[in-house]
Amino acid sequence: METVKLIPPSRGFATAEFENRTNRLQALMAAQDIGALFVTTEPEFRYFSGFKSQFWESPTRPWFLVIPANGKPIAVVPEIGVVGFEQTWIEDVRSWPSPRPEDDGISLLADTLKTAAGSRQKIGVMMGPETHLRMPAANFRQLCENLNNHEIVDISPLVRSIRAVKSAAEIAKIRFACEVTAAGFDFLRNTIQPGITEREACKAMQIEMLRLGADSCPYLIAASGPGGYDNIIMGPTDRALGDGDVLIIDAGANFDGYFSDFDRNFAFGEVDPQTLTAYDAVFAATEAGLKAAKPGHTTGDVWRAMSDELTKAGALGNSVGRMGHGLGMQLTEWPSLQEGGDVPLKPGMVITLEPGMSFLPGKMMVHEENIVITEQGCELLHTRTWPTLPSVK
Amino acid sequence: METVKLIPPSRGFATAEFENRTNRLQALMAAQDIGALFVTTEPEFRYFSGFKSQFWESPTRPWFLVIPANGKPIAVVPEIGVVGFEQTWIEDVRSWPSPRPEDDGISLLADTLKTAAGSRQKIGVMMGPETHLRMPAANFRQLCENLNNHEIVDISPLVRSIRAVKSAAEIAKIRFACEVTAAGFDFLRNTIQPGITEREACKAMQIEMLRLGADSCPYLIAASGPGGYDNIIMGPTDRALGDGDVLIIDAGANFDGYFSDFDRNFAFGEVDPQTLTAYDAVFAATEAGLKAAKPGHTTGDVWRAMSDELTKAGALGNSVGRMGHGLGMQLTEWPSLQEGGDVPLKPGMVITLEPGMSFLPGKMMVHEENIVITEQGCELLHTRTWPTLPSVK
Repeated sequence: METVKLIPPSRGFATAEFENRTNRLQALMAAQDIGALFVTTEPEFRYFSGFKSQFWESPTRPWFLVIPANGKPIAVVPEIGVVGFEQTWIEDVRSWPSPRPEDDGISLLADTLKTAAGSRQKIGVMMGPETHLRMPAANFRQLCENLNNHEIVDISPLVRSIRAVKSAAEIAKIRFACEVTAAGFDFLRNTIQPGITEREACKAMQIEMLRLGADSCPYLIAASGPGGYDNIIMGPTDRALGDGDVLIIDAGANFDGYFSDFDRNFAFGEVDPQTLTAYDAVFAATEAGLKAAKPGHTTGDVWRAMSDELTKAGALGNSVGRMGHGLGMQLTEWPSLQEGGDVPLKPGMVITLEPGMSFLPGKMMVHEENIVITEQGCELLHTRTWPTLPSVK
Repeated sequence: METVKLIPPSRGFATAEFENRTNRLQALMAAQDIGALFVTTEPEFRYFSGFKSQFWESPTRPWFLVIPANGKPIAVVPEIGVVGFEQTWIEDVRSWPSPRPEDDGISLLADTLKTAAGSRQKIGVMMGPETHLRMPAANFRQLCENLNNHEIVDISPLVRSIRAVKSAAEIAKIRFACEVTAAGFDFLRNTIQPGITEREACKAMQIEMLRLGADSCPYLIAASGPGGYDNIIMGPTDRALGDGDVLIIDAGANFDGYFSDFDRNFAFGEVDPQTLTAYDAVFAATEAGLKAAKPGHTTGDVWRAMSDELTKAGALGNSVGRMGHGLGMQLTEWPSLQEGGDVPLKPGMVITLEPGMSFLPGKMMVHEENIVITEQGCELLHTRTWPTLPSVK
């Protein structure tokens, strides 16, 4: 077997990219007369500052990025983080000796926000769906009391609308993560044998993806069972795969802070004809999704195109709650592909198509592919999945 | 070179362990007359339920675990998660079709809490230091309004006091993660050569740790520079290591949901005598910490023992803000080893000793080791670091 080698794109971003992101946000802030906002979570912090560290794995210290109505963002961060900003476009870095539970940056954040907001009343915070505040809830309460002369407004719709449309440099990173993932699946298809466990298969794929250039693979689940599986979010387990089994692996590899997120299905030996039919139906649903995913259509249109195919095939529904979602700095991002979804697709949006169905009680078949919306339609970010269910023998 | 092989402990926990955790929490709840509480974050959810999934990587859907004053926890979760509870000790699993932004589990959570609390006024939420609520802030506000006949109280001190003392089964998992990490560092010491980059060194170590039995390595940073480094939370970068450099790698490997967290330092060729002296001072500080870490002493006592050694060696201070912390389901947990710290050490607590100092402006030396407090003192969870700074040639 030939050893695959993939060429990664360059790391990081030009300063112009951060300027552009910030300018777009500030234009939306101006339209709502928002004086300043702050973010607390890793993706948003990194998106506007360029500060990239694995240290977010430690929950101890809060980190804040304040974005004023004009000018560069201001970092309000623990002392341990100050040096890391030398590599970013941020100039104003304010810090406190953290951890300091009695005032872990809250007074410094409040002062920074008040000064940045100036005479404007509104201060923005991310409070909407798919977000959370990465700071103690008691501290957020204190902050709101401290800012009681201001109006706290939800700015999550602003941030998500900007983040949903990816730049060329962002797409290049996602594409590389996707190519590595596709190569990892091909490696597995060429090497696994009956008797392997879910965990062993995932481990082999994980090591191959690291070798191919992924930085990490924070999401790598497996599920299996005779003729199908009953979930797509647990595992891997030590279950050994044998004749008649179907294995799904769903992988989110990461390169330079950007994710892939798609799956592949493997049969072992001979599987039920119903399983093969379900595979074909879900493959057809993705084909329909690929045709429907284009500017001018909505998330609901793409959902409808895929759902119709699954209904034709006798789908019993599924428990996933949607058939795809945004993808980028997070494994899943806004928007969701759901019934009635009204988010218009725009060039540069990266989304997953994830049709899935139960074809028997407790037996699911799920496909997933990653695409970018283009001016004319969409483009796959990796090779299309295998047109028929491969059988490992 | 001999190929290292390590034997992992068994996965998961006996049901008795979850009963014991829940009973301990419910005893603390009773003392404060708390009728019910809920948790939203992965470690706490897993700690009390046994539900373990990588799907927390997706920020889209909130997950809630309600713990009543008596009886088993109740899961209030997205439909996609229901099947996963068959493998847990949880029996009462309530779900809603998520994502559903207009009511993503909030009304179901409120009803569940009210019923569970019965006539008791207090409902507990984690709101204190080192915590956050993994749910939209707007939804938490709605929930509080819905529960306005109840008093919302902070239960983070209760949860952290229980989690800080580890069971034998938990310690076995942490010990294995530590042994894998130590073997990964030894592998690197035996194989790296001048010219390697920080990133290549981390990648080689990561793959070796996966081979040795780690599930993943969510934290793996590197920093380097002539004679020392200026941070311990950024990197790895593509900087190539050469004569006079010092490289630090800090690793948090994970096995079955439990972390290691310690570092190692490597010199390349000849380094400044000051660097060697700093290494010796920080090694001595850890020795002092190992002697001080025992029941009856506090977190502040251990900090003092280490700090005195660093002061003797002419430390210029450091920006880390503490010299160690709890360790377990998270890379860093409560408590911190800080000046004046008053948390009494108890058998079963797993902590890191992390003395560090700047010995020249912009030049740090940091050591870290992982220990468990025993009846008599403490025990290292892996081989002690190298007594003198190793030189790669």
